[in-house]
Amino acid sequence: MNLKVIAFDADDTLFVNEPYFQETEQKFCALMQDYLSHQGLSQELFKTEIENLDLYGYGIKGYILSMIEAAMRISDNTISIEIIERIIELGKELLQKPIELLDGVEDTLKALHGKYKLVVATKGDLKDQQSKLHRSGLGPYFHHIEVMADKQEINYKKLLKRLEIKPNEFFMIGNSLKSDVLPVLAIGGHAVHIPFHTTWEHEKISHKVEHKNFKTVEKITDVLKILKH
Amino acid sequence: MNLKVIAFDADDTLFVNEPYFQETEQKFCALMQDYLSHQGLSQELFKTEIENLDLYGYGIKGYILSMIEAAMRISDNTISIEIIERIIELGKELLQKPIELLDGVEDTLKALHGKYKLVVATKGDLKDQQSKLHRSGLGPYFHHIEVMADKQEINYKKLLKRLEIKPNEFFMIGNSLKSDVLPVLAIGGHAVHIPFHTTWEHEKISHKVEHKNFKTVEKITDVLKILKH
Repeated sequence: MNLKVIAFDADDTLFVNEPYFQETEQKFCALMQDYLSHQGLSQELFKTEIENLDLYGYGIKGYILSMIEAAMRISDNTISIEIIERIIELGKELLQKPIELLDGVEDTLKALHGKYKLVVATKGDLKDQQSKLHRSGLGPYFHHIEVMADKQEINYKKLLKRLEIKPNEFFMIGNSLKSDVLPVLAIGGHAVHIPFHTTWEHEKISHKVEHKNFKTVEKITDVLKILKH
Repeated sequence: MNLKVIAFDADDTLFVNEPYFQETEQKFCALMQDYLSHQGLSQELFKTEIENLDLYGYGIKGYILSMIEAAMRISDNTISIEIIERIIELGKELLQKPIELLDGVEDTLKALHGKYKLVVATKGDLKDQQSKLHRSGLGPYFHHIEVMADKQEINYKKLLKRLEIKPNEFFMIGNSLKSDVLPVLAIGGHAVHIPFHTTWEHEKISHKVEHKNFKTVEKITDVLKILKH
């Protein structure tokens, strides 16, 4: 491997994310419990998020708007303004959650820093992601952060163009097979999957991945063995 | 000048933006006319936007949330759900406004393409800005788009680090003295100001700018004279 850039996904790869969304969803369901079952509410919210994805993209602000829209639709516009107010508060709390680093992240970055160009490659909202990276204290390990509108092949191709590197010089590490692994392998890059204990419905895939440029590891420090550091 | 990168602001430099926000604000004021004067409503909305800026950043999704919050506060939570619904619709319309290129933009890009690395350097929401650039048809002229969380000196310093160039190799073109000119001059870059007929309150500055690396021009094609093409 003649690697130039090692890219790390952020959410649930460097620090906790999905559990915070799930906690917010629990609170949303509690607010709306007079209207539907927990499962029915979750389904309606997910449906609204996916319908809005093309327009809003990923990130917390779009999620807040989707919660508001779901609440209005589920209640047939009979919901109270106080519940809308509470949903906005839930969103603002979610935007300010503490950053909880995952085990081994800092040791791994310390070992690789100075040997490769390290970048964060994350999708979602620019402002949120830059704020989280800043608050994580991990900023100094990275050359920069690349916030991507989505993580499909086309987005990775643009990323490589921007980084001015060839696909086989690119090594991606992340918790999502769908977003961090499959598109990277498809364009000729290397990828490592580190499963996280919980995955957003939208990120799930059903098949197994096998590829010469691909490995699954249990923890992020295992990446050092693959790179032989 | 030994320029390597020429960066263009997007909103109101490449294509129309602020007039669309103003049109949305007019509609918001019409919806809320029972509560306050037009001027009072505009002030409350602006206040809410600025209060939320640290948390939401720039962009349309934050603007929608600020309109909802302002409507709730102005009405003391007596606003109807239908008005919240209408505000979300206004936001979705704003997200899908047609792209209207400003005069001379395409000629200027055509003349400079291939001679410099051209990038778009814009603040705001990643998803919105990428979508607008894509829909503008101008994408092929640019090496890539840099969406910045804000346009302060620190953000430009990070941008230059990412581009791996020195400040005097950077030339910025935009309609905002506050965002496109002053911070760029402060870090040692070159800047050209092209005033647009209307400016968001938040972008206004009161003093004149004079600097050896700075020029004001009337239209974007005048940039070619400065660069001697």
